[in-house]
Amino acid sequence: MPDSWLGKINWSVDGLVPVIAQENGSDKVLMVAWMNREALKLTVEKREAIYWSRSRKKLWHKGEESGHTQKVIDIYLDCDEDVLLLVVEQVGGIACHTGRHNCFFKKLEDEQWVVTAPIIKDPKKIYDK
Amino acid sequence: MPDSWLGKINWSVDGLVPVIAQENGSDKVLMVAWMNREALKLTVEKREAIYWSRSRKKLWHKGEESGHTQKVIDIYLDCDEDVLLLVVEQVGGIACHTGRHNCFFKKLEDEQWVVTAPIIKDPKKIYDK
Repeated sequence: MPDSWLGKINWSVDGLVPVIAQENGSDKVLMVAWMNREALKLTVEKREAIYWSRSRKKLWHKGEESGHTQKVIDIYLDCDEDVLLLVVEQVGGIACHTGRHNCFFKKLEDEQWVVTAPIIKDPKKIYDK
Repeated sequence: MPDSWLGKINWSVDGLVPVIAQENGSDKVLMVAWMNREALKLTVEKREAIYWSRSRKKLWHKGEESGHTQKVIDIYLDCDEDVLLLVVEQVGGIACHTGRHNCFFKKLEDEQWVVTAPIIKDPKKIYDK
């Protein structure tokens, strides 16, 4: 059956699943985004992360503007078959649109969210090349 | 302002956010679950992961039946403030209800999901104590 591996996934009612991108080697959790069937199929074909942008309502080839693509090493599905985990190589070392290495940089300390990671590259310089 | 750190979070329309549990030390992604405000508040108070079960529609103190609780070391929020990352110590070394160490054990290989991790403990023995 063609693409039956796609049918194994418990897509939500809006046809999406959350996707964790974890960095190969460092094992850092870089970000969480979403995929629909087409995004996952393209990701597998191209071996680069292609997500579904819920805000822009279209496919989002991560890094297409910034050059910070994600090379996909491995893809895992969880026990309930409704979350994906991508092991990726983060080109440029910047996964976050704020110019940081990863998106999980606000740490809860004494009932406050404290920024714990530096900006590696000014976001303006990432996108205005 | 009391609990203003909770108000910083972009809760979805159904009042939830996805939560990644990552193991302290190994950096393995153990599982993804969901929290509402009350679950997160209790998690912070007790320093143990308390999720919101979407299927049972109630608070779920992870490990309350199995003993496999998750001691919370750190809590991170992402740049968009709509995903949480918990760094945890997984008591008993089993996070998955299938009796495996973690939930991401189905790996995509040649268009098939291949089980890559062993069952550490028979699920029947986890829950029927």
